[in-house]
Amino acid sequence: MNILIINAGSSSIKFQLMDVDSEETKIKGLVQRINQDNPEISWKIRKEKSKKKINIEDHRGGLKEVLDLLVDKENGVLESYDQIDAVGHRYVHGGEKFQDSTLIKDELMKDFEKLNHLAPLHNPNNLAGVRAIKELIPEVPNVAVFDTSFHSKLPPKAYVYPLPYELYEEKGIRRYGFHGTSHHYVSMEAADMINKPYEEAKIITCHMGNGISFSAIDGGHSVDTSLGFSTVCGIPMGTRSGDFDVGLVTHLIKSEGYSVDEVHEMIYKKSGLLGVSGISNDARDVEKAAWEEGNERAQLALDILHYKAKKYIGSYIAAMNGLDALVFTAGIGENGWESREAICKDMEYLGIKLDKEKNRVRGKKADVSKKNSPVRILAIPTNEELMIAKETKRVVNNL
Amino acid sequence: MNILIINAGSSSIKFQLMDVDSEETKIKGLVQRINQDNPEISWKIRKEKSKKKINIEDHRGGLKEVLDLLVDKENGVLESYDQIDAVGHRYVHGGEKFQDSTLIKDELMKDFEKLNHLAPLHNPNNLAGVRAIKELIPEVPNVAVFDTSFHSKLPPKAYVYPLPYELYEEKGIRRYGFHGTSHHYVSMEAADMINKPYEEAKIITCHMGNGISFSAIDGGHSVDTSLGFSTVCGIPMGTRSGDFDVGLVTHLIKSEGYSVDEVHEMIYKKSGLLGVSGISNDARDVEKAAWEEGNERAQLALDILHYKAKKYIGSYIAAMNGLDALVFTAGIGENGWESREAICKDMEYLGIKLDKEKNRVRGKKADVSKKNSPVRILAIPTNEELMIAKETKRVVNNL
Repeated sequence: MNILIINAGSSSIKFQLMDVDSEETKIKGLVQRINQDNPEISWKIRKEKSKKKINIEDHRGGLKEVLDLLVDKENGVLESYDQIDAVGHRYVHGGEKFQDSTLIKDELMKDFEKLNHLAPLHNPNNLAGVRAIKELIPEVPNVAVFDTSFHSKLPPKAYVYPLPYELYEEKGIRRYGFHGTSHHYVSMEAADMINKPYEEAKIITCHMGNGISFSAIDGGHSVDTSLGFSTVCGIPMGTRSGDFDVGLVTHLIKSEGYSVDEVHEMIYKKSGLLGVSGISNDARDVEKAAWEEGNERAQLALDILHYKAKKYIGSYIAAMNGLDALVFTAGIGENGWESREAICKDMEYLGIKLDKEKNRVRGKKADVSKKNSPVRILAIPTNEELMIAKETKRVVNNL
Repeated sequence: MNILIINAGSSSIKFQLMDVDSEETKIKGLVQRINQDNPEISWKIRKEKSKKKINIEDHRGGLKEVLDLLVDKENGVLESYDQIDAVGHRYVHGGEKFQDSTLIKDELMKDFEKLNHLAPLHNPNNLAGVRAIKELIPEVPNVAVFDTSFHSKLPPKAYVYPLPYELYEEKGIRRYGFHGTSHHYVSMEAADMINKPYEEAKIITCHMGNGISFSAIDGGHSVDTSLGFSTVCGIPMGTRSGDFDVGLVTHLIKSEGYSVDEVHEMIYKKSGLLGVSGISNDARDVEKAAWEEGNERAQLALDILHYKAKKYIGSYIAAMNGLDALVFTAGIGENGWESREAICKDMEYLGIKLDKEKNRVRGKKADVSKKNSPVRILAIPTNEELMIAKETKRVVNNL
């Protein structure tokens, strides 16, 4: 079954055509600089990379280029659009309405529009991608796979904030969580690796990339997760603060002369690794400064990241009363064995015993725990595209 | 050694005269409605309570009434002021400057003034109390016992926020923590109860009163604590929110039409138990509504409180890689066995096994854990006045 996977951002569209049954990627690529100067499309077929300048104005134009490329006589991988069985859209926010991957029927488009305010930087682009595909290849079914829906079974004690209840009832302000597709994928892989039925496993997934979120997954459902209504909370990220004293936000405005916009920009763009280190939002740069140059603020930035990660793991173990597998994924999680080592250090009381030798792998699926570790510690490369393809197949097959 | 303990608030002064060696309280009382209509002083000697109207204008006037009462021919407990060996002042904020209880020499008064901006609602009153005592009985030494100083050994990874580092360097914005006197007192009591040297014990103290803060205490030092720069973060309280998505604060202002002051008031005065339940800021009222009337929002408010408490405990176990004793203290912690039971439920993986029968005590020192519980669970009434007296004695004896 051929699934076209679309991830439409503000100025880019990632695409991938995959035979979901063999898990073979036929082509993957990227349209860049939509609405900017010199847009281009780049792609990869097997190991061969190509790119070309294109002349487009919007997401529709970009997706037209993608579709043209798929059936291109010279570069293409399909003979006709009939060979696309479904399109799976990465969709950031499903709100409370969409608790599962969903076939995007025309009569639902109004409901999709209503989600835009929950993720104003992302959902409108996702929707533009859906509209364009529906127009260009109207006969192919479209499925939305939401970043939030894997978290839709959170219990109220984990999603209702300790704020006036009206904010939830009247404005939908609650914890939604993100990166659901990644948490879902790696937790299923983890259950498989530890030979435990997914429905019985207690798993903590640490998605540590550009964005960072941790999830507690009990019996196949996310029961807690570190991102919330916004994407700035939880564990500190490259430039995002993660959790800190909420009272400081109003203090900075009321007593220290910051404007609301300045604080907003501070916590999204100037905090986290960059804020503490003063060096970079990229963990690799910060590690280099700390370890090769002995930069103390760089080391502190890493210490804070690892300490908060450690505390989140402890809190999720308490939430689930146990843990079978601790999973690291995405950029830092898959590649940064140093971070895995730092986070798992001195965690024996919780049953977490890392094998330092086994742990020195980058970008590979691996069990990096000691033989006698009650908790299996796993590095698992995430594959959100494959998960979107699988979800799309599941929804289409249920029609 | 007779210590007069003074806790000067905005409109009230709590006082107590204690022989710190026998731990006997000779008199305790309260001056109320300073700067308001109908001020009065009330006191208790042994079990006998008395009160009278007074005519005062400020803290100095209130403290003059206290001192007059102490040596009053009819009601007093002292023959002269010579019998007061020292005055111990509860002092809310010591900043980074005062990391230990401190003899308040005249040349330090400028440094004490500089602390006022860190706790503008509390420190100026504490300082007014010190000034008045120095004026009224200049020969008696004054000691400041800070709510923050027990937390002064926090490691940087626990006190530096993941924000631009300049906020710490230039403005002193960091986690300070509060309720230190209570955390210190009950953790020492706990080490004693479990027969472990304080310097070797890992203890979590849950101070759950009107304000709530938890501390991780490793080797006799607070290594993490849930209140921070402000007093609104951490575990949800009666009307204070505790932690929630920091991104929501700017969202409410930028996108939902709230003013900064409205959000500030919301998180300090309209959140926590009151905000979620819509009923009361008092845990007992909320429990009544939940358990006797089946009120779902009241139950949710309690569920959120207990769930966050549970997660903090897990995170501090991770921070310390172990736990010897879990201590509950202050109003809810000492009396609310229902809260202790709810928080400790399903925590066996972490070594926490509560004995439901033993746990049904209120306001008493008790080990409420099962015999086979690796972690001792303790209810310990706090006694901040005694701790202030002991600290005052220690400082004065070191002169």
